[in-house]
Amino acid sequence: MMKWEDNVRRAVPYVAGEQPDRPGMIKLNTNECPYPPAPGVAKMARQMNWEQLRLYPDPDSGILVNALAEYHHVKREQVFVGVGSDDVLSLAFLTFFNSGRPILFPDVTYSFYDVWARLYGIPYITCALDENWHICPGDYCRPNGGVIFPNPNAPTGLLEGLDVVEEIAAANEGVIVIVDEAYVDFGGISALPLLNKYDNLLVVRTFSKSRSLAGLRVGYCIGNERLIRYLNDVKFSVNSYTMNLPSQRLGAESVKDEAYFRATTEKIIASRERTKGELARLGFTFPDSRANFIFASHAGVPAKQIYQALREKDIYVRYWDKPRISESLRITVGTDEQMDRLVKELETYIKKS
Amino acid sequence: MMKWEDNVRRAVPYVAGEQPDRPGMIKLNTNECPYPPAPGVAKMARQMNWEQLRLYPDPDSGILVNALAEYHHVKREQVFVGVGSDDVLSLAFLTFFNSGRPILFPDVTYSFYDVWARLYGIPYITCALDENWHICPGDYCRPNGGVIFPNPNAPTGLLEGLDVVEEIAAANEGVIVIVDEAYVDFGGISALPLLNKYDNLLVVRTFSKSRSLAGLRVGYCIGNERLIRYLNDVKFSVNSYTMNLPSQRLGAESVKDEAYFRATTEKIIASRERTKGELARLGFTFPDSRANFIFASHAGVPAKQIYQALREKDIYVRYWDKPRISESLRITVGTDEQMDRLVKELETYIKKS
Repeated sequence: MMKWEDNVRRAVPYVAGEQPDRPGMIKLNTNECPYPPAPGVAKMARQMNWEQLRLYPDPDSGILVNALAEYHHVKREQVFVGVGSDDVLSLAFLTFFNSGRPILFPDVTYSFYDVWARLYGIPYITCALDENWHICPGDYCRPNGGVIFPNPNAPTGLLEGLDVVEEIAAANEGVIVIVDEAYVDFGGISALPLLNKYDNLLVVRTFSKSRSLAGLRVGYCIGNERLIRYLNDVKFSVNSYTMNLPSQRLGAESVKDEAYFRATTEKIIASRERTKGELARLGFTFPDSRANFIFASHAGVPAKQIYQALREKDIYVRYWDKPRISESLRITVGTDEQMDRLVKELETYIKKS
Repeated sequence: MMKWEDNVRRAVPYVAGEQPDRPGMIKLNTNECPYPPAPGVAKMARQMNWEQLRLYPDPDSGILVNALAEYHHVKREQVFVGVGSDDVLSLAFLTFFNSGRPILFPDVTYSFYDVWARLYGIPYITCALDENWHICPGDYCRPNGGVIFPNPNAPTGLLEGLDVVEEIAAANEGVIVIVDEAYVDFGGISALPLLNKYDNLLVVRTFSKSRSLAGLRVGYCIGNERLIRYLNDVKFSVNSYTMNLPSQRLGAESVKDEAYFRATTEKIIASRERTKGELARLGFTFPDSRANFIFASHAGVPAKQIYQALREKDIYVRYWDKPRISESLRITVGTDEQMDRLVKELETYIKKS
């Protein structure tokens, strides 16, 4: 024990999925997109003037914020960008969940929420999903310090209707309600149209999944102008320049190519639906995912065993040894070829078991 | 007033220098390097496989951490990287200044320190520099929650000897002492050799000044392995993936080119010394800077007027309308040509005044 250790913050960090990188492996464990980013991204990277790196980037990320404002038909003052949606969410926790009252989120959800709450000393209460993995909106209609949930939820992939989102937003006018739409582009329904009606609503998005840009670290959120101003005040109290030049320039290029974006997300949706059929045939059950992953369990074979068997075949899926979810695997939707390989290995293993 | 506003954190953010970008302007206001990054940086950017952006980056930034560990002859477990040194410093405040006792820093120094302290609810006391702008080490030898100071200091540019750093580190074994070496490469003396002796010491560096990579957002710190582990636990509780692929790959390229690094910093040192002579000739006084800027005042003409006159000539320097420093300008050292233009405009303006 060193003399200074008593004065140090002890944090129990979020554990992200593994990032192995071996030729031939199939990586279905962190919900990345199997297709490359829009072709304009690499084109811009090859032709841009890299000597500009000597200068600080635009602290307001104007080029990226403007592209997103135009894309979503909102004012640029309603858009905030960060180093992945995790940066946006972390800053939103710090900014908005400041009442001292407990915040509310589902008991099966993105496992970073409780990490941020503990780090920033925010009390929290989790609300159990129902037996079909759905959110019970009534649980969120009691005094609280704020609400956050993903829609579609993770790792279930289940979508709630806008009526559920609206019920929760309407019941919580005194606090901020964050809808984490990381997976909305794969067949979800966005809460963005509700922003005109609810000034306490914040919608968070990421470039990591549907835009194939996990390696660039770009996330954003859209909300009421005043809410975004508070978020910016905190952001500029942490780090003036979070978005580097490549994030701003390459991120903006991605937003321009709507046709590629639609084609990519449609391919993933088609592969997901096809994979659902195959998994059902093998005896798996799963909530009806609207995300780029499937949360599947098998009545006959423990999830942990399947996870390990797949690893031995160099196929990585996500497994958590945690209450309520330890009997399921979260399988990212890859290309059809990758899903065929997965199904073949699953079939072989399950027959043996 | 919206219903949720009472529950929101109100932050008074740091105000960074302006980032205008007009052809022909001379930008001497944010201590950027006038020379481009090492040629290998742009070369790597043009040839790397940008399709890899679809994957999450290495959360441990291995390629960059390894390059820095090798460069500084320390273990990789002693190196932590972040989105500019501001990210590193912000996380260090959150991690290490957690005792509830006030932290100590100079009263004229980097103006982000008090912003982080207020944001994270860390009490602080500032210690006045002496009449020659030097740190008084005795001020830091009383009970406290941690110490931070830049060396060379900003915006004075003054260097303290290693004896001063060691006196402060030795007097504070129960807390963390952070030496912010953002400007050390322009003729400073690093505290890195003291790390073997003091496990409470943390040395922070940036790629934004001497490595011409302000636009890439790369900073780092080096310290005792255990201290770096605590910092990583907090970092991984905020955002798993802060360093995007370009930061890691291009940052590592910069570290490889020692000859270019030395040539660039030597050119800036030579231009600084030459500019000191010119400014003295015009009647300016200034502390003897060892950084890539000069903190100059003129007995005959108010700093604010000079600042505005230079702006009209499209030359940007930094001015703060704050106690103790409102009679000085912080002038970044640019190329010799830029400094000649600056001196010419100053000469004309001062003769007129």
